Parts: sequence; structure tokens; C-alpha cells
Amino acid sequence: MIPNAPLDALLSHAHTTAALEQVAGRLGWDQETVMPKGAGPQRAEEMAAMEEVLHARRTDPRVGDWLAAVDRAALSPVEAANLRHIERDFERSARIPVDLAAEIARTRSAAHLAWIGARADEDVGAFLPLLTRILDLKRQEAMALAAGGTAYDALLDEYEPGATGASLEAMFSALRPRLVALRNACLDRPAPPGIAGDFDESAQMRLTRKVAKSFGYDINHGRIDKAVHPFSSGSGLDVRITTRTNAADPFNCLYSTIHEVGHAAYEQGINRDYLLTPLGRGVSMGVHESQSRIYENQLGRSRAYTAWLYGEMTEAFGDFGSANSDEFFFAVNRLQNGFIRTEADEVQYNLHVLLRFDLERALISGDLQPGSLEAAWNDRFLADFGFAVEKPSQGCLQDVHWSEGLFGYFPTYTLGNVYAGCLHEALRDAVPNLDNQLAKGDTTAATTWLRDAVQIHGGLKTPKETIADACGKAPSEGPLLDYLEAKFGAIYGL
Amino acid sequence: MIPNAPLDALLSHAHTTAALEQVAGRLGWDQETVMPKGAGPQRAEEMAAMEEVLHARRTDPRVGDWLAAVDRAALSPVEAANLRHIERDFERSARIPVDLAAEIARTRSAAHLAWIGARADEDVGAFLPLLTRILDLKRQEAMALAAGGTAYDALLDEYEPGATGASLEAMFSALRPRLVALRNACLDRPAPPGIAGDFDESAQMRLTRKVAKSFGYDINHGRIDKAVHPFSSGSGLDVRITTRTNAADPFNCLYSTIHEVGHAAYEQGINRDYLLTPLGRGVSMGVHESQSRIYENQLGRSRAYTAWLYGEMTEAFGDFGSANSDEFFFAVNRLQNGFIRTEADEVQYNLHVLLRFDLERALISGDLQPGSLEAAWNDRFLADFGFAVEKPSQGCLQDVHWSEGLFGYFPTYTLGNVYAGCLHEALRDAVPNLDNQLAKGDTTAATTWLRDAVQIHGGLKTPKETIADACGKAPSEGPLLDYLEAKFGAIYGL
Repeated sequence: MIPNAPLDALLSHAHTTAALEQVAGRLGWDQETVMPKGAGPQRAEEMAAMEEVLHARRTDPRVGDWLAAVDRAALSPVEAANLRHIERDFERSARIPVDLAAEIARTRSAAHLAWIGARADEDVGAFLPLLTRILDLKRQEAMALAAGGTAYDALLDEYEPGATGASLEAMFSALRPRLVALRNACLDRPAPPGIAGDFDESAQMRLTRKVAKSFGYDINHGRIDKAVHPFSSGSGLDVRITTRTNAADPFNCLYSTIHEVGHAAYEQGINRDYLLTPLGRGVSMGVHESQSRIYENQLGRSRAYTAWLYGEMTEAFGDFGSANSDEFFFAVNRLQNGFIRTEADEVQYNLHVLLRFDLERALISGDLQPGSLEAAWNDRFLADFGFAVEKPSQGCLQDVHWSEGLFGYFPTYTLGNVYAGCLHEALRDAVPNLDNQLAKGDTTAATTWLRDAVQIHGGLKTPKETIADACGKAPSEGPLLDYLEAKFGAIYGL
Repeated sequence: MIPNAPLDALLSHAHTTAALEQVAGRLGWDQETVMPKGAGPQRAEEMAAMEEVLHARRTDPRVGDWLAAVDRAALSPVEAANLRHIERDFERSARIPVDLAAEIARTRSAAHLAWIGARADEDVGAFLPLLTRILDLKRQEAMALAAGGTAYDALLDEYEPGATGASLEAMFSALRPRLVALRNACLDRPAPPGIAGDFDESAQMRLTRKVAKSFGYDINHGRIDKAVHPFSSGSGLDVRITTRTNAADPFNCLYSTIHEVGHAAYEQGINRDYLLTPLGRGVSMGVHESQSRIYENQLGRSRAYTAWLYGEMTEAFGDFGSANSDEFFFAVNRLQNGFIRTEADEVQYNLHVLLRFDLERALISGDLQPGSLEAAWNDRFLADFGFAVEKPSQGCLQDVHWSEGLFGYFPTYTLGNVYAGCLHEALRDAVPNLDNQLAKGDTTAATTWLRDAVQIHGGLKTPKETIADACGKAPSEGPLLDYLEAKFGAIYGL
């Protein structure tokens, strides 16, 4: 055992920071679920105080001293991975001038409020000044981070370490034509019927708990509450999810739950030795989304699992218009024209993301001015979807991300879907009789494989290594496209 | 406007610290109400991280520099009060050696666990080593804080700034004989009947919400949940309470709620200008307890309020053995022999506290050794209550306080009752027709008077000034004793 005091100091500092990040995250959970209505102004101060503490820790000059002094010989793989995360976070934080970070934080709040108002009023012009301002600040941040490299890549790297706009562009260019073709082919066919009825919301919550359990959600280290927007929150031993109910649409509740269980299972599945270390949370947004999407889609919307779910739905709600489990499977998966990304089906979802990816890269590069965003959005939407946006809340004002300065976030959704496609191919190879289990509502073989292949590693590897090692080959868009064409070809008789 | 940069720095630092203290407090609320069962080990790390941050802020040498540099001329009363709190907190923190503070924190956890085990096993000996250790450490802390003064006073000052053991001793010596005499006189008379029935726990929670509302609890800035031990948590815009239910005993739920509403109303009633400043929370434990107790006892257990509550109880639960509101009033207030402080009635409660006050002063002074604590407790209990402790869980192991190192806390309970007695006398003078309102379940006049006379001031004045200004004279034990003798004399026909 060689003493390595700077390493110990770094790990101890990172441990406390990780614990404080959990606390800050739980404040967010509290705000969305149980906070008294009138507590908002005080909560904003509490959040700001936590941010002040976290920012001071991330930019603590002692971290730089320790990093300079640490002995890098004879590090274990876990130590080396921890050091990699600590160094990366410190360098990113150190590159952003303090005044710029503060100005971004202030502007983000203002831009978020402006976006809410503008969306309600269907008035892009009311959002433009603050969109322009937050974009300008994020471009400054991106250039400071990029240090001569590509600005957009520096932003993307925050959410998907190691990814670049160019590499995603190559992958997404291959996705887009086949998705558009599949979309058009499906929508040319008669739509399968949906479901209809009055779905008691308490019964939805009871069923959603059963569904969460069927996907292995560990309620001893989590909890399920209702919130306006479903989310997953926390790492390690306390990973909470939220869902919502709509009396006319039980799929909203059930598939939000399965999606968030995928995120939560990732955090719950990480090697417990990594608890409250830089390795103790999901390694990237893309890998995170791969887990939520494979749970939700490749497993939760499969013919086998929906056969089980059909029985549960019938028991909970009686007759709701699907005569058998095949009709129910079609109803779960049917395509519909729509403007809204978060409501899109598996085929069309990524088209929504690709549109945003291209537009935000142009915004960051300066090729697209904020004043031209609405027209650019509407043109692209018409080209990809074949019908026209009628109002900004259906178009460029529909998502919260840009108002929060989250440029570079969108492509991780589609990258997650691509990763889910790769993992699903590998999973089916590894567990040939998976459908037999899914048809009984038993996902154990699938979720165990995902835990051991992906989740357990937390931040030990890079995102791309994490997926490549799990699949035995480099990730690509092929498996996702093959899966979608096979599944929807069968449903629509293509 | 004279610039005073050190003052601004101190206030800004204190603001962030106050916000972080709210966050840490809410972690405690979360743990007792909604935390997943398996999250405990991670939560301990999160709490420790928050404590590390708070401790570093409290002992930040810059605070000492700012205090030395601040211009004390021309301070407003609010600025002066803020400065007083900041200076006091800094000086107390600076006097405690870092190693001692860390050792106390570690030992407190161990002692708490040992106490739980010892109490379950009825084995004082199993707790003795850690009681001895935590006592020794707290004596070291007291001596460091006292700087030549009285050790016990230095500990007491943490909970009741400005109070001394000697001043409380004088007050409590006057209380004890009249309380013992009143207790004996009541218990010599036939006991009024209690209530009996099966009190639906959901109905208890519905009624407890109505009762909380009747006392002006602001649910827009708070919430009510169930927890094992009732408590109030938070300041300002987010003040939450908990209660509990017992199907055989609805008073447990209702009066726990009223007690916690008293604490919460204090925090909710503080001048909003003081939000997240050193003035923005209750000024001492004694003043806090004065609010919880006057809500619970002088108001909640009054003949007038219980007349309204009788109607509500009858509506909620049907017949439960009280033929009319007078019988119900007697049942609410009847005395019973008992070992447990937290279950004691108004007459006997302070006798339980006085016993602890005398014993803990002897422990801190060294006049009593931990090994002799059990015998000393049992002797004193027999002398005051007239019957013998049969097992340690009824005696010296019943309370959590000493295991947590909270020496000097107990007397603030009785001081709070004394203060409540004084405030009640002044309130009755100020609102002569109060009973007319209480009999309708309307506490507005009482709670408004308490808010304007006491709660609104937060930490602006010293604790004693707060009560003296509200009452128009220095606080003393007389009003409490007069109130108790009159009330229980009437109930028991003395």
C-alpha cells in the first residue's frame, strides 16, 4: 500500500461533493412533489445557497494542487477512473470565468420565465431577447470550454463525454431517411384502433406500482409519487421516481413510470462500492436514456410484455376497447401525427430530436440567428413530418431546454435510443427465450442482464466503452433501425 | 447611507448559512417522513456533508476579520441584533477545538445507538460507558465555552441565551413545592373518567387538520404528515409539522398537533423581513416552548376550546363516553400517575423536568457520577411522585437527550411553561372576551395577539426581553402556578 495523500484528499473532497449533490437533487424532488405552495421564494434562495457551495467546491484551488501532486503510478482502475472524472470536472469548471457562470445562472432564470410567458401567449418575439442573451452567454461558455476546438462539442461534452457533433451527425444522417420512410409507410396504412374509457386514477397508480415492481424497481431504495412532469431523482440508496395520471390515457402513467424506472434502475444498479464517488452515478445522458428507453420501448412496448399488461389492464379497468392482446399491442404502438416530441411514438420520436440537433448546432455556430429560428423550425418540420406547425407552442417554443441554456442536450435522447437498439440486439442474443418471461410480466432476465452489462459499471468506463463492452461491438444506428422496421412492419403489414 | 462593507459581508455570509441550515433541517424532515427505508446509510453521509459545510462556515476566519472591521456606529436596531447573533455564534464556534467538535459528533452517534439498545434491554450498565464518554466530552466543551464561568451555564446558553442555572434554580425552587402540593391534592380526589372507544385514524387526521386550521396554521407555507415522533421543522415560508395517531387515544394526535402548530406558528409568524437572517427563527428553546405550550394547554386544553372540540369529536367519532362538554374537559385534563415526561399532564410535567435539571447539573459539575445516576433518579422520582420506578425505561433511560449530548436542554421546557403562564395572563388582560371565541373554535384573537406580541420579533430581542416586553413585566413562575391551581382546583373541587 503506497500512501498517496493527494489522491486521498481528492477522493475525500469528491465524496463530500457527491453527498452535497444528492442533497441538492433531493431539494428538487421535494419542490416538485411535497413542497408547500407558498415556499417557492425561500426555496430559490436555498437552491442558490447549495449552488454557491457546490460551485466553490468544484473550483476549489486545492483540487488543482492535489491534481498536480498526485502520484499517477500504480493507480487501480477504479482510482484512475475517479481521477479522470475529478480532473475533467475541475478543468471544465476552471475554464469558465466566475462572472460568466454567475451571469448564465441569472439569465437562465429570467429566460425560463420569459419562455413560460411566451409559450402561453404563443409569442416567439417575447422570448427572443432572452433567447438571444442565453445563447450568446452559452456560446461564450462553449468557446471558453473548447479552447480552440468546436464550440458545440464543448457543450455536448457536458452531457455526453467524448461525443462530438460530427460523429453524431454521421450517425443521425443514416437514421433520418429510413425513419422518414418508415414513418410515411406506416401512416399510409389504416391506423389500428386506440383504447377508450374512463381509467380510474387510483387504479392507474396501483397498476403503475405493480408495473414498476415488474421491472425490478427497488422500492426499499426509492419511492413513487405524482408530479406534473415525470422524473427520476437521486443515486445510490435513494432513487425516487414520479409519474402522473390522466383519466383518459393510462399509457401516459404506465409508460412514464417504466421510462423513469429505467433511469432509476441504472442508478440503483451501480456497484455499491462506488456510492457517493464520481463513479456512483450514470456515466452520461445517452447511456441513461438507453436504459429508460429499452425499459420503456424494447421491453415495455414489446408484444410479449404487452400481452401480460393487457391482462392487468383488463383486470384493473374492465373493457377498454381492445378485443385481445394483439389489438392491445397495436394500440400501445400506433403511430399518430403530432407536433410534440414527448408524446411521439418510437418511430417518429427521433425525427423530433434530429430537427432540434441540427437547429441548435446552427444556433451555436452562428449560422442560424435566433430571429430566424421559428421559420427554420417550421420549414424543417414540414419537410420531415409532412404537415405544418400552426402555433409556436407546437413548434420552437415547445421544449424547456433552450430556455435553460441546455444546448447540446437534445442529441443524447436519440443517442440513447441508438444505444438501446444495440443493447436490445445483444440482450436478445444473450437471453433467447426472453419473450416467454416477458409474457408473464417477468423482466428479471432482461433487467439482470442490463444491470450486469451496463448499470453496475456506473462511471468506471467512458459512455461509448460502456455500451461497446456490453454489446461486444461498437455502437451504431443499424440495430435500432432494424428493430423498428421489423416491429412496425409487422404491426402495419408493410 | 454609509457604506459598511464588512457588515454587508457578514449579512451575506449569514444569509447563505441560514439557507443551508434550512436545507439541512429539511433533510431531517425527509428522513422522518418520506425517506425510503434502505436509504439510511447514504443519508448519514449526506447529513455529515452538510454539517461539514456548516461547521466550516461557522468557523470561517473571514467572519472574525469582518467582525473586527465592522463599523458599529450608526447601526439600525435590526443590524445590531443581526451582528449580536453573528458574533455570538462565531465566538461559541471558535472556542470549541475542531478535534473536540468532531469527537463529540462521532460519540453522539455511538451513544445514541447504545442508548437505544440499553433502553430496549433495560440495561443501564450497557449505556454507562458511552454516557460517561459523551458527558466527559460535553464537560470539556462546556469548560472551553465558559472560559472561566460556570460550565452548565455555557451549555444552557446554547438553547436559552442569557439564562443561567442559578436563575432557573431560583425560579424552579419556587415552582416545585406548589406543584407537588397541587399534584397530591388532585390525586387524593376521585379521578374524573377518561374517554374510550375505537377512534378511526383517518378521522383523527381529518379532525387534526381542522384543529390545526383552527389555530391558524398556514398550510400554504407548511404541511402535516405522520411520523413516529411529532415535530416541527423549518422556518419562514416552509414550516412543516408531523403528528401521529393511536386508535385508542385521539388526544395523542390532536394535542401533538396543537403543540407543533404552536412551534410552527412562531416560525411562520416572524417578520418576513427577517427571512433567512439570524433574526428569522425562534429566539430560544424556552420562547419556542412557550408558544407550543400556550397553544396546547392554556388555549387547547381550556374549558372554552374543549367545548368546541367536544362537538367536533362527537361528530367525528360518535359517543366516546363523555356525556357533555364539561365531562370532556375533565377527561382532557385529568391527572394520572405515570413515569413518562412526554405523557404527563400540565401539573406533573414540570416535576419531571425539574428532576432532570437537578440531575444533569450534578452530572456536569461532577457532583454526580454516571454510575450513580440510576439510583439518584429513582430516589428523586419516589420523593416527588410517591411511587417507585420499576425499570430503567421508566426512569433514567426514558429520554433521548443525554445520549445526544443535549445537557442544558431540559430546563427550557419548564421555562417555556413559565413563559406561557406569563403570556396567558397578559393575553387574558388584552382579550377579556377570549372564551367566547374559543368556544366557537376561533383562536384568532389569541393567536393574533401572540404573533404581534411575541412571534413577529424572531431574534430581534433577547429571549427574556421578548417575554417581558410582551407581558409588560419581568417573567416569573407566579402566573403559571396561579393558573394551574385555579384550573385544577376547579376540576378537582379543591
